[in-house]
Amino acid sequence: MQTWNANIIGYVRSPYTDTSQVPRGLGATHSAEGVLEIQPELEAGLQDIDGFSHLYVLWVFDRNEGYELTGTPPCDDRPHGVFATRSPFRPSAIGLTVVRLLGRDGRRLRVSGVDMLDGTPILDIKPYLSNVPDAELKRGWLAEVEERRPPRP
Amino acid sequence: MQTWNANIIGYVRSPYTDTSQVPRGLGATHSAEGVLEIQPELEAGLQDIDGFSHLYVLWVFDRNEGYELTGTPPCDDRPHGVFATRSPFRPSAIGLTVVRLLGRDGRRLRVSGVDMLDGTPILDIKPYLSNVPDAELKRGWLAEVEERRPPRP
Repeated sequence: MQTWNANIIGYVRSPYTDTSQVPRGLGATHSAEGVLEIQPELEAGLQDIDGFSHLYVLWVFDRNEGYELTGTPPCDDRPHGVFATRSPFRPSAIGLTVVRLLGRDGRRLRVSGVDMLDGTPILDIKPYLSNVPDAELKRGWLAEVEERRPPRP
Repeated sequence: MQTWNANIIGYVRSPYTDTSQVPRGLGATHSAEGVLEIQPELEAGLQDIDGFSHLYVLWVFDRNEGYELTGTPPCDDRPHGVFATRSPFRPSAIGLTVVRLLGRDGRRLRVSGVDMLDGTPILDIKPYLSNVPDAELKRGWLAEVEERRPPRP
């Protein structure tokens, strides 16, 4: 495969230091608070970010090696293709998380909803602008699993 | 800045060959159809993707050079930080687009909602699973611009 070089714009400060601590699977809620710490020379890029309630964070699964084209997620007993899952073992090991912005202190963004490990490299931050209309959203195998096995209370 | 190497999993086939053709700014609708063409050796990774209505596509702004920490978007006359905009001139020039999945032919995903140029490298594809509750969503400077200047009809 051809490759492409991304820049690391900062690092996540998270209460999680090991993947076993991150809630996973159906019904998992991500309410943990953390900090997105942007490199000092990029602080000007955060201007006006304060007005957004939610942000996309693009980050690196930097503690994984290799990838699997199919795998069985923790919430299911059947395998699915990696591009139909959130598996960390991806050809490009990029994670995507929607976080809620709680506040900004200079180059530090306080957020909730982190599911990354402490020290995770951040590639990009973007404003979350709009939703897919609920009536149009279909969730494939995940909806089928939920029907077979209701989310944990 | 430190860097990180991503793999290119495929390429976008799009009706757009020049950025001037891509609808931009407030009220722009992205209804163009295109194809996400995955590398042959990764086709197994698409198993069960067919059941999802919407996908996240992570891709590279490969026809841009360099980045700007602040810039004035086409819909506004005031500058904002790059991380508070969708500007293509980002430290990591990664684009994020939500597309609607129309169908799959082997390693080719037919989608609508493309805003990428023809030949754009794709880094990752993920299922779109859930929305931020509308009542919680705040859209910062963009909402202010829309109040000053209503979206085009």
